[in-house]
Amino acid sequence: MTELGLLRTTGGTASLRRAVIEDVPSIVELLTDDPLGAARDGIDGTDGLQPYVRAFEALDADAAHLLLVAETGGSVVATMQLSFIPGLVRRGALRAQVEGVRVRADLRNSGLGRALVLWARDEAERRGCALIQLTSDKQRPEAHRFYSGLGFTASHEGFKLAL
Amino acid sequence: MTELGLLRTTGGTASLRRAVIEDVPSIVELLTDDPLGAARDGIDGTDGLQPYVRAFEALDADAAHLLLVAETGGSVVATMQLSFIPGLVRRGALRAQVEGVRVRADLRNSGLGRALVLWARDEAERRGCALIQLTSDKQRPEAHRFYSGLGFTASHEGFKLAL
Repeated sequence: MTELGLLRTTGGTASLRRAVIEDVPSIVELLTDDPLGAARDGIDGTDGLQPYVRAFEALDADAAHLLLVAETGGSVVATMQLSFIPGLVRRGALRAQVEGVRVRADLRNSGLGRALVLWARDEAERRGCALIQLTSDKQRPEAHRFYSGLGFTASHEGFKLAL
Repeated sequence: MTELGLLRTTGGTASLRRAVIEDVPSIVELLTDDPLGAARDGIDGTDGLQPYVRAFEALDADAAHLLLVAETGGSVVATMQLSFIPGLVRRGALRAQVEGVRVRADLRNSGLGRALVLWARDEAERRGCALIQLTSDKQRPEAHRFYSGLGFTASHEGFKLAL
């Protein structure tokens, strides 16, 4: 598996690569170990991992998406999805969108999340994006300080409607 | 061109369809006739329409995107982009994302924008999306009332970083 980058943390380094299907259980664990994710993620009794595997396959089959994991000592310690979305707005700007950033509890505040998002910013630049964007739940004030500290501006309201 | 739907307004109806390349100049006109779009959209002296045409081609080639126009009396009077983004978060939820909603000045507050976004919500449901989302600049309080009135919740901060 090709290493995409080496992410420096206060305690060492983590290796960044595209997720493979075998990573899905670890990613689901990261998604679930989160105050908001606990309620909306996890393995369902009837479907098991299936909805996650289907989503993995959709992402993996499309070059417009990068599902990433950071690994250290053979364990997946962080994940992030980066999607590239064309559009006419802003003179035909390609935009990069970050979704599902999660870092294992013991590595939060280690610089790993920061290194991951900065890698995403650099990758967006390499792909010619005019902007990089994400939304973050208003119940996550720490995340907002984190993204502001990385140069992001909370210029927009993020509207969602569950279907 | 296949009509995707008929959008009712206070003054009549508009016909919704996928945009074709010949619509690009009309779409750019709609993007530019907007307080925020005026500064960041429009036809550049050197490149002309080229960046918009390239973006149109990228959208048109990918079934994950729908670039739409609403037409009445042979004129394009509104536009919207709808993109479908897979992801692992929320049990492998497919999400629909709305970008670049614009309605011609004389048809604002006619119900056309409302009909357009409700069509997007219905299309997202037809495609099995678990949620529909968009971000709206904090300088657009009227837009925020509009989306709230359609059932959207401003639950998230929308962070952007220009590259």
